Amino acid sequence: MEFYAVIMAGGIGARFWPRSKKKSPKQLLKIVGDNTMIQETVRRINGLIPIENILIVTNETQKPGIIEQLPEIPIENIIIEPFGRNTAACIGLASIIIQKRSPDAVTFVMPADHIIKDDESFLNTLKTASQFSIENQALVTIGIQPTRPETGYGYIQIDEDSGKSSVYKVLTFAEKPNYATAVNFIKSGDFFWNSGMFIWKIDSILNEINQLMPDLFEGLVQLKDQITNPDFPNILSGIYGQLKSISIDYGIMEKSDKVFLVKGNFSWSDVGSWEAVYELSEKDEDGNVKVGTVYTDMALDSYIYSPDKFTAVIGLDNLIVINHNDALLICKRDKAQDVKNVIDYLKLHKLNDLL
Amino acid sequence: MEFYAVIMAGGIGARFWPRSKKKSPKQLLKIVGDNTMIQETVRRINGLIPIENILIVTNETQKPGIIEQLPEIPIENIIIEPFGRNTAACIGLASIIIQKRSPDAVTFVMPADHIIKDDESFLNTLKTASQFSIENQALVTIGIQPTRPETGYGYIQIDEDSGKSSVYKVLTFAEKPNYATAVNFIKSGDFFWNSGMFIWKIDSILNEINQLMPDLFEGLVQLKDQITNPDFPNILSGIYGQLKSISIDYGIMEKSDKVFLVKGNFSWSDVGSWEAVYELSEKDEDGNVKVGTVYTDMALDSYIYSPDKFTAVIGLDNLIVINHNDALLICKRDKAQDVKNVIDYLKLHKLNDLL
Repeated sequence: MEFYAVIMAGGIGARFWPRSKKKSPKQLLKIVGDNTMIQETVRRINGLIPIENILIVTNETQKPGIIEQLPEIPIENIIIEPFGRNTAACIGLASIIIQKRSPDAVTFVMPADHIIKDDESFLNTLKTASQFSIENQALVTIGIQPTRPETGYGYIQIDEDSGKSSVYKVLTFAEKPNYATAVNFIKSGDFFWNSGMFIWKIDSILNEINQLMPDLFEGLVQLKDQITNPDFPNILSGIYGQLKSISIDYGIMEKSDKVFLVKGNFSWSDVGSWEAVYELSEKDEDGNVKVGTVYTDMALDSYIYSPDKFTAVIGLDNLIVINHNDALLICKRDKAQDVKNVIDYLKLHKLNDLL
Repeated sequence: MEFYAVIMAGGIGARFWPRSKKKSPKQLLKIVGDNTMIQETVRRINGLIPIENILIVTNETQKPGIIEQLPEIPIENIIIEPFGRNTAACIGLASIIIQKRSPDAVTFVMPADHIIKDDESFLNTLKTASQFSIENQALVTIGIQPTRPETGYGYIQIDEDSGKSSVYKVLTFAEKPNYATAVNFIKSGDFFWNSGMFIWKIDSILNEINQLMPDLFEGLVQLKDQITNPDFPNILSGIYGQLKSISIDYGIMEKSDKVFLVKGNFSWSDVGSWEAVYELSEKDEDGNVKVGTVYTDMALDSYIYSPDKFTAVIGLDNLIVINHNDALLICKRDKAQDVKNVIDYLKLHKLNDLL
């Protein structure tokens, strides 16, 4: 039995403007540390899975950056979607490609742009999950033990009584809650953060797609016979165009009765905003994170990124400053979620070079 | 009788970093409006004084910028100081040059970097002052009717009973006061802002220099005979090197009994900081001043200058943002005076390109 990984790397990361743009999305940036996020994701999973079994699903725009950052990944493992159709189609596409290579494979599915701090604990969690998925034909998701009433994450509720070697039956998936609801989730003790990471046997997920998303399954069946066809990109484009844009959570996980959760006790973040980057970064004695030559006077608890240009900050606290190439962002830390609105503004005003 | 003007243009304007640097000091910038400050100063005074009688005292570094911005000024009217020796020496030097050309001249002395909004009122004030200076051999200074207890200006106290066609005898010069003192100054009604602008007959000021600053006068006498000497710059350098660095206020105005004040009722500012620029600029409905393509969201009452780079400001009020060439300043408006400390930092760290 072979192990495969699917790394989903199609997102733009609008909240990381102006560092993340179409050609330099979040996963291709060094957000925290010396490696880009996708390099870290590959390095981490490579502790368990050989490099030739790691697939990356992305798009034409990001392909050159991925090849440059990950020259060790075989070129045929970089799968190009003609356009985004959400995670159900993305995972379906990767699944038939893996099935063609290795019908019995166990597959780990994960986003390219998360931060995980304890590799060993992470890999142990994957082992537990894969063992359980093999023995029970189960769809296993990784739930993160929550440490605060975070409103930026989705939650998964488990049946505590179903516990079996740290794997639990899933009761419900919950969308991003408001603060009061999040507090209640934490108090209850049976809600976990939805990490968007999945482990399953390739036939388990394809069977569930067949049952719960028959239109998608039909498209995948047609595609499977054409994988080696030189005209595959055009065929894929035609079939993708007819698929609905549905997440794997909504299309499969919330509806299937084969869904289980394995508890992840490692430190995890989806790094959803510059505020999260500030939280994850090492601070100086003033609580500041400085990248570049930065002068501060009466300035505390701020993230100041200006690698190419001398920057002086005077008399201001809790700032995000991103001075990057042709754009400058200055944002109060607690407004970091609103950075995505800049993208709408740039589109509206056709400032395409800045996108 | 001829009228002359001396425009003092030697300052750097450290509070306007990063727009003002050694080669681009405050007076050579378009701080408010379409002209640079020195262009505005020349244009304004040119309503009263022919261009060939306007002298500019500056230094070698700023000379090319001044020639470029003011091609109409005869080159022999641009006087180069070898180094700064404060306003007494600067005014003395200009005075002997004017005396050589026109011994009876009435001279207007003013800084190059102030903003005055009502030209007609300003010129009328100058006419009143010059008339009085001719009739009374007086040193006349322009005092601005204060509109607030400003702590950034020096003050001049007049003898209200000495009033004669809006010209008053000066009692005392006061340094920049603290806030409580400034409030008392305003309440008393006999204190005016010291604008640093003077009007006098050329022999009146030179006589007072002779009386009150004999060392300076002696230097000036030596210089006067050498003005046409091709080696004048070297001779000037030698004599300047021995002069004390003293302001005209301290050296002459505070000590002379020939000092009078004419009330200026026009809108005036010495534009001492970015905060003053914000105050003087036209605001949009959010109280913002924007130069360049600037996106704001939940951002009020800020001055945002970024002509070359798209800038987004989110969730922050009362900011000064100056994004200029190779440096970025982000400053709380009420800390605008502290921008000069950046200059010390840059000198200490030998970041000379940024100075």
